[in-house]
Amino acid sequence: MNISIIGSGNVATVLGKRIASTGHHIREVFSPTKKHAIELAESIGASPCSNWEEMDMSSDLYLAAISDQGLIQLCGYLNLDNKLIVHTAGSVSIHVLRSVSKNYGSFYPLQSLRKELNRIPDIPFLVDGNSNESLTLITDFAKGISDQVHRASDDQRLTLHLAAVIVNNFTNHLYSLTEKFCADNGVEFKLLSPLMSETTARLHDFSPSQTQTGPAARGDLETIAKHLQLLKTNPELRELYSVISKSIMQMKNGYPF
Amino acid sequence: MNISIIGSGNVATVLGKRIASTGHHIREVFSPTKKHAIELAESIGASPCSNWEEMDMSSDLYLAAISDQGLIQLCGYLNLDNKLIVHTAGSVSIHVLRSVSKNYGSFYPLQSLRKELNRIPDIPFLVDGNSNESLTLITDFAKGISDQVHRASDDQRLTLHLAAVIVNNFTNHLYSLTEKFCADNGVEFKLLSPLMSETTARLHDFSPSQTQTGPAARGDLETIAKHLQLLKTNPELRELYSVISKSIMQMKNGYPF
Repeated sequence: MNISIIGSGNVATVLGKRIASTGHHIREVFSPTKKHAIELAESIGASPCSNWEEMDMSSDLYLAAISDQGLIQLCGYLNLDNKLIVHTAGSVSIHVLRSVSKNYGSFYPLQSLRKELNRIPDIPFLVDGNSNESLTLITDFAKGISDQVHRASDDQRLTLHLAAVIVNNFTNHLYSLTEKFCADNGVEFKLLSPLMSETTARLHDFSPSQTQTGPAARGDLETIAKHLQLLKTNPELRELYSVISKSIMQMKNGYPF
Repeated sequence: MNISIIGSGNVATVLGKRIASTGHHIREVFSPTKKHAIELAESIGASPCSNWEEMDMSSDLYLAAISDQGLIQLCGYLNLDNKLIVHTAGSVSIHVLRSVSKNYGSFYPLQSLRKELNRIPDIPFLVDGNSNESLTLITDFAKGISDQVHRASDDQRLTLHLAAVIVNNFTNHLYSLTEKFCADNGVEFKLLSPLMSETTARLHDFSPSQTQTGPAARGDLETIAKHLQLLKTNPELRELYSVISKSIMQMKNGYPF
């Protein structure tokens, strides 16, 4: 297939590279910022474009990997007639694309994508289409890119996007705060690597509710008090510690203690 | 070495199995609950004991893997003269053992241990001793069990215990809440596996502060509002979502956006 990519950020870059590596031809990369369009286009053998009026209208698939707000704007002035267009947004309905084309859908990567990473991780795709024909085309295309392709409605995609925010963004933020806390207190964050790996590794065999450990889960108020004392000069982390410990204690009856 | 284990919970069980597998002889397992003492003792070729007065006093090392409160109680009535004793508590000073023996220290596993797991994960040990001699003995013993052995003072151990609570207990709790949220909303939690694996896998190459993604980090208030709306019937998760998103936005300038 001949493909046009709209966008040049993390998602556009990682998906562009992945798609290019599977034998599809990426014809054009559009970005309003010329430098960004050229940068990504060059890295995947495509032509850059930074002017709407000059966009190539002959691709088989248009992949809009841009911010939600950019997507809404795009729908105000792009018209592709019946060319297939997909967006990669987790929390935006596919039907925002109604004004752009007769054939549209979603191609949402359920993964955290950053262009700095050399290695491309496994990417499950959540796909949907406005018709059976669109859905079939999008599904077949996705299956060439990933072996994990699932149909998800707007509501299901929104639900999984929210879930992804919690398990990735929130977790990663806790790691960031902990890294800073360790540095501030003169201990090595890297010592926690085996623990962090194990936390996700055991999800292959157990539900997380079966493997919860720690002071809050065992109702060890004394240790919690010691930790809050240690966090007295760090009000932000202290608040998170309190709120999450409280939540663990509320769920305690669901935990194996 | 001949070893006595005091305790029969998760830490005692996992460490007991690990130690037994390295060629040490575990002579005795003490637990006030007879059934528990027998269960663990049988699985590692040791004798069970559930009466303080009958404890074998001839081991080379006593490993107290019990709750913090149990540890304080133990120190009230156990006297080992000069036999080496270590505890596995993250947030308790080694000096609580002062009344038990002349030689004592810490042998703290920086890992989440649960006896249900068949596979024993990598366990970094944080060790300390009340004298150079104790420290050397404990360090040498630890190095036979793990290739990650680090000396840590009481303060450093407390700091790393708190850090471990955040990166493991809190993360795992977020996974538990998300699993329930997915089930309540009819989507499969398992679809998030590649994302959860990737979140920790990339810690090998990047600081977490370099790879933060998501609506809060990019200041996407519209998506955050959609997510909070979706959580309106789930006040607990809604509060966590708000507090953590706020914290991410506060740290935003430290993130690559």
